[in-house]
Order: sequence, then structure tokens, then C-alpha cells
Amino acid sequence: MVDQTYKAFVLKDVKQLAFEERKTQPIKDTDVRVHVAQTGICGSDVHYWQKGRIGKFVFEKGMDMILGHESSGVIVEVGDAVKGLKVGDRVAIEPGVPCRFCALCRDGLYNHCDNMKFAATPPDDGTLAKYYTVAYDYVYKIPDSMDMEEAALVEPVSVAVQICKRARLQAVDRVVVFGCGPIGLLTQAVAKAYGCRTVIGCDISDGRLEFASKYAADGVYKMPFKDADESDETFAKRVSADIKSKFDLGSGADVILEASGAEPCIQVGVFLAKPEARFVQAGMGREFVSFPVTEALVKQLNWTGSIRYSAGVYPIAVDLVASGKVKVKPLITNRFTFEQAEEAFELVKAGRTDVIKVIIQGVQ
Amino acid sequence: MVDQTYKAFVLKDVKQLAFEERKTQPIKDTDVRVHVAQTGICGSDVHYWQKGRIGKFVFEKGMDMILGHESSGVIVEVGDAVKGLKVGDRVAIEPGVPCRFCALCRDGLYNHCDNMKFAATPPDDGTLAKYYTVAYDYVYKIPDSMDMEEAALVEPVSVAVQICKRARLQAVDRVVVFGCGPIGLLTQAVAKAYGCRTVIGCDISDGRLEFASKYAADGVYKMPFKDADESDETFAKRVSADIKSKFDLGSGADVILEASGAEPCIQVGVFLAKPEARFVQAGMGREFVSFPVTEALVKQLNWTGSIRYSAGVYPIAVDLVASGKVKVKPLITNRFTFEQAEEAFELVKAGRTDVIKVIIQGVQ
Amino acid sequence: MVDQTYKAFVLKDVKQLAFEERKTQPIKDTDVRVHVAQTGICGSDVHYWQKGRIGKFVFEKGMDMILGHESSGVIVEVGDAVKGLKVGDRVAIEPGVPCRFCALCRDGLYNHCDNMKFAATPPDDGTLAKYYTVAYDYVYKIPDSMDMEEAALVEPVSVAVQICKRARLQAVDRVVVFGCGPIGLLTQAVAKAYGCRTVIGCDISDGRLEFASKYAADGVYKMPFKDADESDETFAKRVSADIKSKFDLGSGADVILEASGAEPCIQVGVFLAKPEARFVQAGMGREFVSFPVTEALVKQLNWTGSIRYSAGVYPIAVDLVASGKVKVKPLITNRFTFEQAEEAFELVKAGRTDVIKVIIQGVQ
Amino acid sequence: MVDQTYKAFVLKDVKQLAFEERKTQPIKDTDVRVHVAQTGICGSDVHYWQKGRIGKFVFEKGMDMILGHESSGVIVEVGDAVKGLKVGDRVAIEPGVPCRFCALCRDGLYNHCDNMKFAATPPDDGTLAKYYTVAYDYVYKIPDSMDMEEAALVEPVSVAVQICKRARLQAVDRVVVFGCGPIGLLTQAVAKAYGCRTVIGCDISDGRLEFASKYAADGVYKMPFKDADESDETFAKRVSADIKSKFDLGSGADVILEASGAEPCIQVGVFLAKPEARFVQAGMGREFVSFPVTEALVKQLNWTGSIRYSAGVYPIAVDLVASGKVKVKPLITNRFTFEQAEEAFELVKAGRTDVIKVIIQGVQ
Repeated sequence: MVDQTYKAFVLKDVKQLAFEERKTQPIKDTDVRVHVAQTGICGSDVHYWQKGRIGKFVFEKGMDMILGHESSGVIVEVGDAVKGLKVGDRVAIEPGVPCRFCALCRDGLYNHCDNMKFAATPPDDGTLAKYYTVAYDYVYKIPDSMDMEEAALVEPVSVAVQICKRARLQAVDRVVVFGCGPIGLLTQAVAKAYGCRTVIGCDISDGRLEFASKYAADGVYKMPFKDADESDETFAKRVSADIKSKFDLGSGADVILEASGAEPCIQVGVFLAKPEARFVQAGMGREFVSFPVTEALVKQLNWTGSIRYSAGVYPIAVDLVASGKVKVKPLITNRFTFEQAEEAFELVKAGRTDVIKVIIQGVQ
Repeated sequence: MVDQTYKAFVLKDVKQLAFEERKTQPIKDTDVRVHVAQTGICGSDVHYWQKGRIGKFVFEKGMDMILGHESSGVIVEVGDAVKGLKVGDRVAIEPGVPCRFCALCRDGLYNHCDNMKFAATPPDDGTLAKYYTVAYDYVYKIPDSMDMEEAALVEPVSVAVQICKRARLQAVDRVVVFGCGPIGLLTQAVAKAYGCRTVIGCDISDGRLEFASKYAADGVYKMPFKDADESDETFAKRVSADIKSKFDLGSGADVILEASGAEPCIQVGVFLAKPEARFVQAGMGREFVSFPVTEALVKQLNWTGSIRYSAGVYPIAVDLVASGKVKVKPLITNRFTFEQAEEAFELVKAGRTDVIKVIIQGVQ
Repeated sequence: MVDQTYKAFVLKDVKQLAFEERKTQPIKDTDVRVHVAQTGICGSDVHYWQKGRIGKFVFEKGMDMILGHESSGVIVEVGDAVKGLKVGDRVAIEPGVPCRFCALCRDGLYNHCDNMKFAATPPDDGTLAKYYTVAYDYVYKIPDSMDMEEAALVEPVSVAVQICKRARLQAVDRVVVFGCGPIGLLTQAVAKAYGCRTVIGCDISDGRLEFASKYAADGVYKMPFKDADESDETFAKRVSADIKSKFDLGSGADVILEASGAEPCIQVGVFLAKPEARFVQAGMGREFVSFPVTEALVKQLNWTGSIRYSAGVYPIAVDLVASGKVKVKPLITNRFTFEQAEEAFELVKAGRTDVIKVIIQGVQ
Repeated sequence: MVDQTYKAFVLKDVKQLAFEERKTQPIKDTDVRVHVAQTGICGSDVHYWQKGRIGKFVFEKGMDMILGHESSGVIVEVGDAVKGLKVGDRVAIEPGVPCRFCALCRDGLYNHCDNMKFAATPPDDGTLAKYYTVAYDYVYKIPDSMDMEEAALVEPVSVAVQICKRARLQAVDRVVVFGCGPIGLLTQAVAKAYGCRTVIGCDISDGRLEFASKYAADGVYKMPFKDADESDETFAKRVSADIKSKFDLGSGADVILEASGAEPCIQVGVFLAKPEARFVQAGMGREFVSFPVTEALVKQLNWTGSIRYSAGVYPIAVDLVASGKVKVKPLITNRFTFEQAEEAFELVKAGRTDVIKVIIQGVQ
């Protein structure tokens, strides 16, 4: 039932991709082997391909790392200690398995685990292959009504759910989301699914804003550029006042969800927040930004970050997709076969605003 | 019993101080009139004198604003609706009274009230006068064992209690405090009173560090300067690693309390924090700082600010001083009579590291 | 514009109601006078009429207390210090105004204020009169799209919002609500508006369950009676297992909202909850109940109560009704003119299961 | 270095104890083998011996279960995957190891894990043997300054730390602890180490109260008995008023920690609590108690339970003992050799109020 070898899509060197035939290895007694069905491409996959590193994670030639980490599939083998799953089960795959032994894992903060094995994060192989092997508690059975494309996109939905979890988002909140890329859009969708009073999406791209306004946001705002002679403070005050004048945000947004990583968005967000507001930084850009610290201090702003997903997030994301509260299919703008994987990567690299989510079908 | 006129120490214009005789006004039925006994000088008092403004609060010529807001005294008159207080009661004075009607007041977040009347914040008069009139629920009876100097310094202790409240400080925490001025020192003392496991004080001044090590901190660290060719990131990583090597902070500090307002301290603090740590910004410096946003994001750092004091803080500060858990007398390095008030202000302005807290006796 | 006298519906003695003509009094500078438009009847109104007391609140002959506290109206007079409101504004009335001076008020916990003036709670007059006078920050402007019946029912919606606030309710929660009277039904509606995954309503009445299933709940459950020889524990285990078998609650409900006050519901609720679940007791019945303390302990159940409404709740309720997320009109089963007020009270007293909310029109 | 067989103290049947020679088994690669040095006896050990069951955990003849779970020792063997530990390390042993795979484990709530292996909880063997084998992350290195008796008693200190964690205990709290047995006493000590403002211990035994007053509590209170004709409510009001009159608790205790399991204590505790107070039930007694639900509701009391210990608790307990903030040696009233184990159990069974903690030395 399981082939002795399997095809994989591999990063051989920075800017060099290849298909390889891998030898199938035995699985551990707490693992399952999944026949991968669909895989979404994420900016980080492209980043490793083009740059070879993200922060402390460095790809080195010789690692021959399989790419991909947003996947779904069907179980084809289960280890002896696996509970609650059997061959044939259709699943969404949570792509990072932590060590389970460190203080952070034991405390439910496993996204901080230093010994995490995360798909397509050097040196660990990803999911763009016929098979992917993973601990049994990191796959989630999906209902028959959910298709494999939807199940693959549970991964970015989980990123959005984690952002909303970090924000302690509540139905009564007025929320402004900066960034209308895939994560920003899904964050807007999750915020609406959570019943939020007002969800505003901001971006610099007309195309993305148009998509956002049709997808989930109650309103959208086109971020302006800073004038040549304008200080950071003047700019942030001007734009935040403009946003307040256009939307019903009371004395300011209850929650700012920053999914762009852009310095001007961060600055405007701090001025747009009301006293005691929550601010979640999820977009990654420069290592250091010019931050309006006094404004944030005086407001007693509650700022935090959001990275990957922690305990309990994946099941929520499965439920949001399964129940139809978050629709992921509209995000899929381009589909490729496994053999066209490099073409798919080239498309994501191009960064066209009409390309939102690119998905690659698994090996049959 | 109450004089028809009373002496006051007034800011006439930027850099211009004077004594004036004020006419005693009738009090509201929910107010008390306090004969002021002792007043500590705060950096903000000196700042208004020298610069005329702090943020949105601007002193204008003609306001003739009485300075001072860290005071204690004896009640000499009570309004008809006052409960639980009588003439002769010895009290600590909370110097800001909010409007009680806005959404923030009703929600216990009165430090954000836009209609706050705060002593010696333009245009409201302060406490450096024979009498100060204030709502009855904003004075706190003190026990006989507490003297009037201690009662005046309940104010900066309250600032420190608010910082620790914002940090949700617990006995099990390992805490690093940046800044060993009066607020930094008191924050260290409150953290120790709260049973914290480790409290480290950081500063650039040897004199302040020596004081801190004798006062409350378990250990002190002298902040180095950045090398000429060193990036913010390299500096922050180097110094945070050095602090971790010198003190038992596990995988990083549980809590960073920033009471210096200095950019390098903020940067080091973020790198020194462990994943999910709490970081409270209390020191005010520049409006914008270069902030290590990606490091903070990846750690899911819980950053917030602390400003003045919110509901329930003042009674805790009274108790900490009354019980001897926080000793404020060692901070008082210089004492002046009311007539010497300008001399006292000059001393604070000079910024000598051997001057910690300057206190002015009230009019007899 | 304001009449010199006005008609009121008054509790003269236990079981004795009357209409009276009251003399219009001047208002305080922070008050508004509202011409009452609509008033819902609550069980507590009937309880004072029939029994004369609820807990520590005791009606005594001679108080001549005006009944009613769920009201809307139009402002006919504003005090000199009133901000943001004018004659002619249409408003929902929050019926309890606290002292603003005690520690609980200052901390935003005003529902615990010992000096609260609450409409139709002895000895304070209620709203069943032509005019009602109240502090200006305890009325809320409503949009034109909201009618006066809806605005009156913001009051019970606020009770439901407070219950959900106490539960820290989130979209991801699976919720079981015990009780399908007005508060139980509105709690189910608010939980759905908050995006909750599953909301189950439980009651002993077929009629109420049928209404609940059409109104907001995802599913309903008819509470059985205890068998003659059944222990509390056996009963609670049997029924909670039955509920789990009928609905998708995973390892147990995330949240139990108890709006019946019935001992069997409380007992079943504790067994139905999953580890670390939240349980909010809102229904009032007997002073003491037989409580499964060991089951609750072992689960580390988070139990709390909910009483009236605290800071920030009323504006949320206004928004839920205004936005159509919570529909209150279906609950209104019976309407009466002001002159028929006693008839309306008799109908509520009768306790028919087809009577949900009875509303009395104000004096024209 | 490790013997082929080892001596163990075994529960053969209800009320029947015996020494046995067990065969040493190989350890897993993530386990360590500890040569047990000291073991405290807990009421639960005696309960299994005398009754054979606690709740759902049932001892059955043939299980031949080794007793004991409060232990320290020296590592004599480490598995191949063990990190940070070596033969010769002196350790405190956390006696329950969860499955690491269920949703509760992954979320840091491992004390609720259904597949927990807990020492001396049927059918799992305990620590009263020469050797005990346990996962490497469930032993904690202790400093040289801590002796093996202290290290054994880290276990009940952890129970107390968990209670204080559940209470979100803060330095500013006024705390009343019901019960002055080992857990009650340690809870009082931890509360004092956490800097709590006031810690009052309550019990019915003069001897225990005398010990408590010398050990950690700021004050003690002797619980009275209910009068023959007194209702639960009258009793609870009378006693709570008496406690308030004797100690400075303001408008009521901020925190109630219930470590007796006695119904009258629970009832008094609810009436003694101030509005919004926290109440942690840790003492186990009857399955159901008569609970003052309306009083708790109206106060919006935050009630929860505490069971064993969750993530991060054991290291805190080690630190509290190591730093001398919690002194455990005064609790040890009786010491026995391993050969005298049954004698030790008989002493605990007798329940003398002068016997607090009984400790058994390990096999040499």
C-alpha cells in the first residue's frame, strides 16, 4: 500500500529546486504516514528558496530540504501506539511538532519550543512530497463535507486564529486589520466569524482592498504614503484621524491586528488604538522599527506578537472551515499539479496582487 | 480654623517661580480641605518650570499654577456629603480626580479620563500651598505610625504599584528593572515586597547602582554604552547575554520593568525577556524609539505601558508603606522649608546622582 | 414642556397596586428627565408586588414605590452639566445608578455598589410613570432604526451580555444554557451573536423549548425529573451523559450558563462541564443548593455568578439590538397600555409558558 | 551500580501491607532511575491502604501497588535521550507523568490528563521502594543546600503552590485559609512567601491552630460548631461576621483558600469573601455540600478548584524551599526507617493533632 520510494520537491540550494525520489522510511509508533493531497504555498517557502534563511533558521547546501507546510492528505499507515486514527482517514496536517519535554511544551506554549520540528524549516523536510510523516496528535480528521483544498488551508486559518487568540478577540470589539494578503484576509474572516462589531481592512493595494471588501471586511481603507517633509508622528496622527473619521471606531479601535509588517502601519495602528486597546503584531518586516513608545505607554496599550499556533488552535481552525464560517476557497486563485511545482513557486515569487493563494496538488 | 488667605508656590511663567497669597474658596460638599504637611518634588514639577509642557499638557502664562503633587496633610474642613473622614484626620493625597462620568471612569480606568483634574498639571493647581482641596475619596487615612514624609511619598510608591499591577507581578517572577531613579528604586522595592524571586536593577550611574544594591535589589548591573560601530541588534544581544550570564534568570527575565525611558534599555529589555514575558514601559523619554519588533513578535512578548495609577492602587501603596514592606525614608536625601521651595527645585534641576528625593515641608 | 404632575404606577402595599399623580421635582445638573415610552415587566417587579422582598431589599408599606425598570423614552429636560444629550433624544435607560465614590464604583464594579439607586428596588422609584429622572451617563442614545420596544428590552439583553461577559465567552465555545425564560433565551441569542460554536438550551417546558429552538439555540434538551430512588450524583451523571450523547460537546461543555436557578440544572451543569470549563450562575432560586463540590474541584471548574450589569455592558447591548444580531421583538408576546398595567402584572404572575415578555406602553 | 532486585513497600490488599523484592526493569530512553532517599506520607496513601479507593481510582487485590509519592533521591541511571541530568544528581520527584499527547497535555493542563501515570494511584506503583523510574523532565535538580527531607516535601509544597496559582494570589491580598493540616499550613506559608497582606488560618483543633500561629499565619481563628437550632445561613453569617470583627479584612477577604473540605468552612468562606473575591476549593470531603449559591452569585464570587499541580508549579516549589521562603522542616514531626514503614502508616492513620508530617527514610 505504501510505495518503497516517493517523489519529493526539494530545495537543493538557494534558488535551486529539483524533484527527487526519496526512500520510504519506517515510522515511529506514535506517527502516521499521510499521502499528501493538497499543499498551499506560503511566502516563507519562497523566502527559503530565494534567500535561504528566515531569522535564525538557515538553509545550507546539502540539506536537500523538501519544501511545503500547508497540507492535507489521507492516512496510509499508522504506528502501533496511534489512537483514534486509522488508514483512510482524511486529515489536515499541523506542520510543527514540538519536543513535548521542555518547560514551554509542558506549559502549552509549544510554538516557542526550541526543539520543534517544523515542516520546511531548515533542516526539517516539508510536505511537498507524496508522503509526509507526522505525530498522530498533529493531524486532525476532517468531515466529509470539507475538501482537500480546504483542509490544506486550515494552516493559514490557524495562523489567523492564533492572532485572534493573542488579541483575546471578542464579539464586541471594533477591529482594524493592517494588511490584506492571505493572512490579513483570513484574520478579517476569523474576526467576522467571531462576531466582531466592526472589521476594517487596510492595505496600499487597490486590488487587495477590493478583494477584502468583497471577502470579509466591513470596510476597507487605502493606506496613504508619508509626505516628503512629514514626521512619523505627524503622519501617524494624520492617518489615524482620517481612519477614525471614516469608520465608527468610537474613541479608537479596541483591537489592532497588524499583518503587514510595514512600519507606517505599525505607527498608525498605535495612534488609532483606544486606551487599553490590544495590538497584535503578526506581520514580519524589518528587525527594528521606529515605534511610538510614548503614545503606547500613555494609552497603556496591550501589545503582543503572534507566531505560528499554540495549543488548541488547529481544532478551532478546522471547525471554522468545516462550519463554513470561514470560507477559504475564494482565496485560491491558482492551482498547479505537483509536476508544475516550480512554476507555482515562480508565480508566488512574482508577487502579483491578483494572486492570493496558490495551491499544488499532491502526487496521485 | 481655616485662614481666609493662604500662601502658595506658583509657576508664573516658564522658568519663573513666585510665592503668592491666595484667597480661600468654599469647598464642594464632597470635598475636603487639607492642610498640606509635606510635599515631594517630582521630575514633572521641574519639567513644567523649565519647559512649560509635557506632551499635550501646556502651561501658559497667566495660568499662575501652584506646583507640587506628592503630598500629605491634615484635614481642616469637610464638605456636607463627606463620609468616613473628619477634621483632624491625617491623610495621603491622591492628586488626580477624574470626571466619574465617562466610559473610562465608569470602567475603573480613570487614569485615562480626559477630564481628570490633576494637581500641578496645567491648568490645575497643585499642592505646594498651605491648603489643598480634593474629593474626599481621593484622600486616604494613614495610621499613627506613619509620618507625614512617608505619607507624601505614597504618591511615587503608587506609581511603582501601578507598574507592578500592569506587569501582573507575582512572587515567582524573575524581574529586571531598568532605571534606578526614585521610580525605578521604588519599583524594585515593591517587587521585593511582592516576594519576587529575583529583582535586578540596571542603570548607567555607579552612584545610583550602589544605592540600589543597598536599598532593595538582589543585584545590580551597570549598563554599558554602545560601541561606535555596533548595530542596535548586536548591542542588545551582547548586553542581554551579559546580564543573563551574571544573574540567574533562567531562559530570560519573566518581567521587564522599564523605568528609564532610555532607548538602549528598551532594546536590551526585549532581548532579555523570555518567551511570553511581560514588559512594562513606565519611563518616558523620546516619542519614538527604535524598537526590536521582530524579536518581540517571535517571543509573543506582552508589552504594555503604565501611567499614573488606576483604581485600588493608592490603598495598596498606603499599606506597603504603613507595614514597613516598602521603606521610603531612605530615599529622602534633602529636606527644605516651604520658604526654601525654589532652592529645592534648583537642587532637583541639577540632577546630581546623590540627590534622590527632595521634600518640602508645608506652611505651618 | 414638562407637566407639573405626572401619572405613576405604584406599589402601595404587598399585593396592592395603584395609579397616583406625582408632583414633578426639579432635576440635578447631571440628570436628564425622560418621558418613558415603553416598559418591559420583569419577574422581580412581580416578586416585589407579591412578596415585598428580594434578598436584603425589603418593601415596606408607606414607601409607595413606583414599579418598572426595563424602559426606553425620549429626553424632555437636561441638567446644566449634561454632556452629549439634548431634549428630543431617544434613549434606552440603564436603571441603576451607583454612588461613584466607593472603592467598587471606582474600580468599575458598580453592580456591587452598596449605595446604588436602582429603579423599583426598595426604596427607589421605578420607571412605570410618565417621567423618569436619571444621571445622564446612564441613558444611551439609540439609532432611528431601533424602536422604543426594542430600546426597553435592551435591559434584559444587558443582563444576558453581563452573563456572557462573566463567562468570558468566545466564538470557539460550546455552550449549554439552562433555562429558556426571557433571560435564558436572550443569553442563547447573545451567545449565537458572539459566534459560539454550539449553543444548547435546556428547560422542563415543551413550549419554552419549542420557542428556543426557533429563536436562537442550535439545539434544545428537555430536562427530565429525578427518579424517586435516584441520588443527586446518579441523576446528574445520567442526565449529563445523555446530553453529551445527543450533542457534539467534545469532552464536555466549554461553558455552562445557568439561567434557571434550579438545583437539578446546577448539578447537571457541573457534571456536563469539561475540565477547566467556565460556569456562570445567573438564575436565582434557593439560598443554598446541594452542590457537587468534589466534581467541580477535580475539574478545576471556573464558577462565578452574574448580577445585573457592570461597566461597558449597556452599550454592547444597544449595539447588539441595533445591529439586528439579537432580535428582541419575537420575545414580546403581550402588549398593554399604561392604564392596563395591573392587568399586565396579573398576566406575568400567572406564569403561562406562552407568555414570554409583557410590555407596557408609557403615558402619552 | 543498580541492583538486580530491590525492596518495595507494597499494598497487597485493603488493610494489608507487605515488603517485597522486585526485579529491576530496564528503563526507557527518556527515563531516569532514582535511588529514593526520603518519602513523606500523605493522607491519600493511608486512604488507599484503609479504603482501597479515592473517587474513580480503585485498588484491586492483585495489583500489589507500591505506596508513596512524596519523594526525593539520587539518580542512578539515565536513559539515552535524557538531557541535562546525570548519574549522581540529587532530585525532587514530581510523581505524576501525563500522556503528552491529549489536548489537555498539549495545553499545559496536564493535571487533567486521563492517561496520567501517578505514583501510588491504582494501578501505578509509588516511590516507597529502593528505586523509582520516572520521565527525566519530571525530576528537578536541587541545590546542595537543600537536604533530602526538604526535597521530598517539595511535593506538598507544590500542592500549595497550585492552590495559590489557581487563586491568582497577589501580594496585596488578604487571605483566609481554612484547614491547618499539612496542606493548609503550607498554603499559609506560600501565601506569606508571596507577600500577602494578611494570612489567617482557621481550624477546629487548638493544637493545629497553635502550630499555625507559630509557623506562618498572621492570625488564627478557631472554627465554632453550629448550634443545634441554627440554619446554615445563620451560622455562616454569624461566623463570618465574627472573623471580620477579629481581623482586618476590609469589606471581606480577597481570597478564600479552602483546605479542609468541611462543609461549614465552605459555607463560612463564601460569606466571608468580598465581592469579586477568589475562592479555591482544595480540601476534599463529601461529594456534595450545601452551598450558599445565592450569596456566591450576588458577589460574583470567582470559585474554582485545585487538584495536584500543573505546568511550572514544581520548579516554583523547589525555589521556595531552596530559598528558605517556605520552611518545611518544622512540619516533620516523626521520622522512620524504611523497615518501620508500616509503623509510620499506623501513626498517620491515628490522626493525632501533634503529628503533622511523617517521613520515611529510603533503603540505603
